[in-house]
Amino acid sequence: MHATVCPSPGAPWVLALCGGVGGAKLAWGLEQLLRSQALGALRIVVNTGDDFEHLGLHIAPDIDTVLYTLAGLNDPVRGWGRQGETWNFMAALTEWGADDWFALGDRDLALHVERTRRLRAGETLAQVTADLARRSGVQAMLLPMSERPVRTIVHTQEGDLPLQHYFVRHACRPVVTGVSFAGAATAPPHPDLLAALADPALAMVVICPSNPLLSIDPILALPGVRAALRASRAPVVAVSPLIGGQAVKGPTAKMLRELGHGADNRTVAEHYAGLLDGLVVDHADAAQALELGIPVHAAATLMDSPESKRALAQAVVGFAQALTRPAAHGVRHA
Amino acid sequence: MHATVCPSPGAPWVLALCGGVGGAKLAWGLEQLLRSQALGALRIVVNTGDDFEHLGLHIAPDIDTVLYTLAGLNDPVRGWGRQGETWNFMAALTEWGADDWFALGDRDLALHVERTRRLRAGETLAQVTADLARRSGVQAMLLPMSERPVRTIVHTQEGDLPLQHYFVRHACRPVVTGVSFAGAATAPPHPDLLAALADPALAMVVICPSNPLLSIDPILALPGVRAALRASRAPVVAVSPLIGGQAVKGPTAKMLRELGHGADNRTVAEHYAGLLDGLVVDHADAAQALELGIPVHAAATLMDSPESKRALAQAVVGFAQALTRPAAHGVRHA
Repeated sequence: MHATVCPSPGAPWVLALCGGVGGAKLAWGLEQLLRSQALGALRIVVNTGDDFEHLGLHIAPDIDTVLYTLAGLNDPVRGWGRQGETWNFMAALTEWGADDWFALGDRDLALHVERTRRLRAGETLAQVTADLARRSGVQAMLLPMSERPVRTIVHTQEGDLPLQHYFVRHACRPVVTGVSFAGAATAPPHPDLLAALADPALAMVVICPSNPLLSIDPILALPGVRAALRASRAPVVAVSPLIGGQAVKGPTAKMLRELGHGADNRTVAEHYAGLLDGLVVDHADAAQALELGIPVHAAATLMDSPESKRALAQAVVGFAQALTRPAAHGVRHA
Repeated sequence: MHATVCPSPGAPWVLALCGGVGGAKLAWGLEQLLRSQALGALRIVVNTGDDFEHLGLHIAPDIDTVLYTLAGLNDPVRGWGRQGETWNFMAALTEWGADDWFALGDRDLALHVERTRRLRAGETLAQVTADLARRSGVQAMLLPMSERPVRTIVHTQEGDLPLQHYFVRHACRPVVTGVSFAGAATAPPHPDLLAALADPALAMVVICPSNPLLSIDPILALPGVRAALRASRAPVVAVSPLIGGQAVKGPTAKMLRELGHGADNRTVAEHYAGLLDGLVVDHADAAQALELGIPVHAAATLMDSPESKRALAQAVVGFAQALTRPAAHGVRHA
């Protein structure tokens, strides 16, 4: 299937950690880049802390966003769901008095129904995800971070909210006092994630410009992931989700401020302290580079066109290729 | 809720036994008639032998058809599902390689998803059905024949087929050798069905012009239903689904012939032998009346307009009102 770009399923060339919209854009750029240059395989480990059961369906918002984006099915204007979408299911659902706070498009619904059916029939989330990605022509290997349920809980001044309730139902309005990941402490990361990090063929790990608190931290909270990242021979590079103190989309900057942090790259670098070998920031923030204490590469990080996504992916890969991992990180392979 | 037309939930004035399309049309006529004349309540007991689990959803084709028809939501041209329907869910489902032989419209899907959710949450099918009917403005009380699963199996020369597979997947093409109702022998009829039949206030039982073999027989196969029908004080009147030896829609005539019967009202009368006090036939078949051995009323039974549905309902109610049940039937109340 991936014969031309993938030496073996266990040997990705690039491993990306990814949440929803912003992360998916860079993932698309990486897929295009690796595809066009036949550099090697791309494995994208996707946050499942947003997953929830709704109307009896297993909804996996970040997997869906990454899948739709890489398959070219996503709605680039709305930022979530499918392009050419219709909403007749929702209209009828409202008529029946059902729970309608979470919008499910008619086309989108097919993915949730089919995935839920296959999960109930005994397939794993990784199997279903990989098959759906293959069917839609995606070459990257999409991998849920874990097969076990992890549920991101946003602690707010209005109480604890499951992620989608905070994000959709409350439109990120409540003031955040903390975030936790229910189930994470006992949820083994997917074995392919650990295998990839231990693989000598792995060239780099890219932490996509997703919300560090909501989208990347759930992955890092799984037992053994931080240690495996530190032990990996491959350099770890993050792309900051902030440009000039603002998130392109979503509540990252608002949350950072509510939690008492500066909404800047110093906070991002500190957040990933001990894991990163380099940070990619926007040109607008290049002046801050010297204060961060790690190698920094400035690039255009606003991904508002196919070209800008490809260019950022190229910049990230080039930056990571130039980095050498200090021996302290790579003890297992030294 | 039904205060103006319903003395009490247990005291319907008319009890109708009903399958899908043809039966639903008469049920609509009965609802309109009873509503306009404030004669009394209508309870419609609906076949659930067609119900099946598909894509993880509980689909109840006959309940849906009756509900949509009475609510004025049905597509009168296609004959099933909702008017103004769209099919984007199905298109996406096909793209994902899912099972797509059973067409589910985007609007229709909301009913299946919401019903399945409520059933899984512990509500009974009767509760969900009654609530959805109320929400869509239906005054008649819709009642599934049983809360227990009964599955109609069509035995054919190509093997045993679950009803929807015979009906939809195979488009009624295989030659039928028999019909059975898996689970019927141990499925208690809904208590409200038995209560209605025993109720002295019940004025009549109408067997709608649904397929006797596929839509009415599952109801009659439930333990105690035939006995309760025989014991009821109310006259039982059937409306023949045949006109000039043909069914208006569906495989009734074809099946009767394949099973070695004539596709005529003699077969219908014999099929319901011991239960009926009268049979309504089409004017086209009036000449056959004297051969049937029971009171027969000829009417226009083709329901292709609101007027014809109301008129047939009026004819059926008038005919039943004129019938006196022989004492032999009514021993329990004699």
